[in-house]
Amino acid sequence: MLRSHTCGELRITDVSETVTLCGWVQRRRDLGSMSFVDLRDRYGITQLSFNEDFDGDLLEKARSVSREFVISVTGKVTERSNKNPNLPTGDIELVVEKLDILNPSLTPPFTIEDDTDGGEEIRLKYRYLDIRRTPVKDKLVTRHETNKAVRDYLNNAGFIEVETPYLIKSTPEGARDFVVPSRLNENQFYALPQSPQTFKQLLMVSGLDRYYQIVKCFRDEDFRSDRQPEFTQIDCEMTFVERQDVLSTFEEMIRGVFTSVINHDLGEIPVMTYADAIRNYGSDKPDLRFGMRFNYMEDVAKGKGFGIFDNSESVIGITVSGGNQLTRKQIDAITNYVKRPQIGAKGLIYCRVNEDGSYKSSVDKFFDQDALKQWAEVCEANAGDIIFVLSGDLNSTQKQMNELRLHLGDLMELRNPNEFKACWVVDFPLLEWDEETNRYHAMHHPFTSPILEDLDLINSDPGAIRANAYDMAINGMEIGGGSIRIHDKGLQQKMFDLLGFTPDEAREQFGFLMNAFEYGAPPHGGIAFGFDRLCAILSGTDSIRDVIAFPKNNMGRDIMIDAPAEINEHQRRELSL
Amino acid sequence: MLRSHTCGELRITDVSETVTLCGWVQRRRDLGSMSFVDLRDRYGITQLSFNEDFDGDLLEKARSVSREFVISVTGKVTERSNKNPNLPTGDIELVVEKLDILNPSLTPPFTIEDDTDGGEEIRLKYRYLDIRRTPVKDKLVTRHETNKAVRDYLNNAGFIEVETPYLIKSTPEGARDFVVPSRLNENQFYALPQSPQTFKQLLMVSGLDRYYQIVKCFRDEDFRSDRQPEFTQIDCEMTFVERQDVLSTFEEMIRGVFTSVINHDLGEIPVMTYADAIRNYGSDKPDLRFGMRFNYMEDVAKGKGFGIFDNSESVIGITVSGGNQLTRKQIDAITNYVKRPQIGAKGLIYCRVNEDGSYKSSVDKFFDQDALKQWAEVCEANAGDIIFVLSGDLNSTQKQMNELRLHLGDLMELRNPNEFKACWVVDFPLLEWDEETNRYHAMHHPFTSPILEDLDLINSDPGAIRANAYDMAINGMEIGGGSIRIHDKGLQQKMFDLLGFTPDEAREQFGFLMNAFEYGAPPHGGIAFGFDRLCAILSGTDSIRDVIAFPKNNMGRDIMIDAPAEINEHQRRELSL
Repeated sequence: MLRSHTCGELRITDVSETVTLCGWVQRRRDLGSMSFVDLRDRYGITQLSFNEDFDGDLLEKARSVSREFVISVTGKVTERSNKNPNLPTGDIELVVEKLDILNPSLTPPFTIEDDTDGGEEIRLKYRYLDIRRTPVKDKLVTRHETNKAVRDYLNNAGFIEVETPYLIKSTPEGARDFVVPSRLNENQFYALPQSPQTFKQLLMVSGLDRYYQIVKCFRDEDFRSDRQPEFTQIDCEMTFVERQDVLSTFEEMIRGVFTSVINHDLGEIPVMTYADAIRNYGSDKPDLRFGMRFNYMEDVAKGKGFGIFDNSESVIGITVSGGNQLTRKQIDAITNYVKRPQIGAKGLIYCRVNEDGSYKSSVDKFFDQDALKQWAEVCEANAGDIIFVLSGDLNSTQKQMNELRLHLGDLMELRNPNEFKACWVVDFPLLEWDEETNRYHAMHHPFTSPILEDLDLINSDPGAIRANAYDMAINGMEIGGGSIRIHDKGLQQKMFDLLGFTPDEAREQFGFLMNAFEYGAPPHGGIAFGFDRLCAILSGTDSIRDVIAFPKNNMGRDIMIDAPAEINEHQRRELSL
Repeated sequence: MLRSHTCGELRITDVSETVTLCGWVQRRRDLGSMSFVDLRDRYGITQLSFNEDFDGDLLEKARSVSREFVISVTGKVTERSNKNPNLPTGDIELVVEKLDILNPSLTPPFTIEDDTDGGEEIRLKYRYLDIRRTPVKDKLVTRHETNKAVRDYLNNAGFIEVETPYLIKSTPEGARDFVVPSRLNENQFYALPQSPQTFKQLLMVSGLDRYYQIVKCFRDEDFRSDRQPEFTQIDCEMTFVERQDVLSTFEEMIRGVFTSVINHDLGEIPVMTYADAIRNYGSDKPDLRFGMRFNYMEDVAKGKGFGIFDNSESVIGITVSGGNQLTRKQIDAITNYVKRPQIGAKGLIYCRVNEDGSYKSSVDKFFDQDALKQWAEVCEANAGDIIFVLSGDLNSTQKQMNELRLHLGDLMELRNPNEFKACWVVDFPLLEWDEETNRYHAMHHPFTSPILEDLDLINSDPGAIRANAYDMAINGMEIGGGSIRIHDKGLQQKMFDLLGFTPDEAREQFGFLMNAFEYGAPPHGGIAFGFDRLCAILSGTDSIRDVIAFPKNNMGRDIMIDAPAEINEHQRRELSL
């Protein structure tokens, strides 16, 4: 090794040892006849000292090094007179006896400090320099530790990792595939997997019992702010299980990951039905770090002559604890927020609960103090609170109220990134109606098992059939989802019928899986977690881009390596393109 | 869980417990008023017993299940009168009280037994059934354990896993890329990585210090017997290291893997120069499970009037210990073997050393007993041995002799798959001359550092420059290779010059890496292991296909899912294809 120690490891107990360190120059300070250099590597920073009295030539050489030079130094560990309690190595410094410049550096295009002056584009272009910054590096280390914690748990629980292929077959259903032209099979294409779903089910048919894989998946979508064309999944499947077995297994995994990576006890993870989640929060991934549950106010809001409420299917109110402190201006801003076309509310009604117990609403003309008292009772509002009310058809009002609730959570600083609230959401609808194609689509995927007691609705009211499916949400973000699968080919056939697959279409797309199910498919179920999202939550960041070493931008471009790019004529010819 | 225990876990100590098992019917034996079913899952086999006296209806139901049916049974663990010492569960059986058929099965297209009657094509098409066979399943479990052992070692050694991108940029040099058309960037393509080489070097520039990844790589080659278009690498890189550091680190890793996966001590791994490997074995990946080192016989073979030797640059002999037992017929077959066009020897000379110390050669006309005694001395041959001799130009003779040596190793059963001999080969040539393009190519890749003391040959004799590169071979197979990299951009520029890259070409292909090297690139080096190959060796199989869950055939086709395949018009249009 070119070094005897790392830059993060020397302590007061090492004083008077002669050591060699290598690293990058974080900064240099010149003070009269002395210079100090902070030397940085992945493990920390160690102060180097150079003194004219000790070696004038060396001091001069030290003064030739600038930020981000790579140097090697040998010297004696010495107790610092001026200790730095913020640095693990802050009790010592290295009095340098030998300095080698291993590589010089141009001045970086942005400062390599925790707070940098570089914009996002330039930092992506020079990602290898951005990773030198501690907050960026730490997220990659957290990702590594999360990966390790997941594997440790699954290995101990008897799961075995199996690598499934990346060059598979395109299935036109669902999201768009990336395809790969085959040179040896002219005019044919592989597709990159959107998930290993069918392969993991085949592995259950093969008897491997418990499978996992931390695996890249690919989706050619129109990129939104926080999507990446390639992303990583923790993909798992188990045999001879019922839903509760899957929930217990992966609740324990996620709790274990939080404990081992950030030393946080998630506690027991509550289970909520999809119906309750929508009813109480208007979302299938409710943020449970704060309350503001929905209150259905039709009984106390309708029939008082206020036409907007009277003509609405639903009237929903939420109470902001201590919200009476909101100013008129703030309430106007909130009203404008929900009236934005993306949310689409027609307006926002509020009712303040004053300290003296009186009420002040924006619809006082229609609702007297007694009527507003009823509101407060339904909405469990107390003195100092404010109630916000939206109305309209049930579905839209729930959606709008979800947006308002999250916005108010932000405004009231109730969404603390260092607090974590997870929940399971279960009993999703099996099917969703697609207006465009005028048929049902599988809400998860066509192999999701219905809840068997709902099966008699299959002809009368298929939309009401619940799926034996489950999602896990943390802090309002979906981080995982899965289901018990259909293992019976008769039931699978019924599902394909419902989804409007002709037998030919079903055979063409899923023939090998349907074939496999003829040869003793066991009951099985599984789950997949968004690994990038999980790492983002554990790193306290909103963006998955922060936890990906070399992310792509919103156009799916890697601006560091400048990909995608044109290929040459020879390549095109070979691929018949 | 649908079961209380697995089929591999019940023991005599569990007798009289009531348990529930799930699994596949391995076989059923009917004996008068009784039936026995072997129930199989990933963990083992448990015998189920059904008895007419105990429950006639149940016996009848049991007799309706066939091979590969999935069933669930509840019953009492009972000591067997007829114990099976070959089965961990062989002391007990389950007297079944309840039987549920979870899924029936068609008769499988081949028998699900350790020795199957299925050919390779049918087993690939029904791979999910083939994996039910213990020898196939065991290899996937070994792969999982190897993966875990590698990670455990590297995690402990301070390496962090970083995922590098799969959608990168095509580089026309080297093997052929698989490309991925970009929909959002018309007429542009991503490429799938042949290895994460440049990304891991960028991670070293970023200061991550020690990186690893177990990662899929892709090469669009014309498939030979044991190549796969997608394969898995253990990819590693370290900062501030010299060659010996890399060798020590990964020697320890490989030894640890052998210990933990197959409980085998590899011992210290010898280091051999490329020059010695070629001189002594004619191969840069010598199989050291057996001797038969090359002996250079020019001094004792030339000048005796045998024209073939006299006109040859080299005369090489190897001694087969105990080889005098080979019959004339066997020697003829060996001679035909080396004369095949793939090997291309003109003929094969032999010399038997008889028990009485006399010699009998195929060229007795030219060489008397004294001359042959000299042969025996040079070749260290003793009574009972045989010497085989090839001659010609040095390079070809070494190659032919390597083939002969391996063939004789097989013939004499010296290549035992349960014995393991590893070695490092170092000091590879930096460059190889390509007759076709009339220029030098990098033997490893353009970032490989030369051995610095050879640098003064750069103008006079570049072909003689040694690379600071190393390979690891086990049992004659290359399983890993790497190098110390060039971190100095001046030296890198010289390399590109030598390789005939114009500055524009170099910038276009490696511009981002050359840019990165301007900003403080540290000395670094690394290695990559072929994970499939390593797993194959540990599993005692010759073919990497055996250790891949869903391999492709020789035409790069996945015949189970029938990929690649045509894509539809809509997809082509969206991709402008």
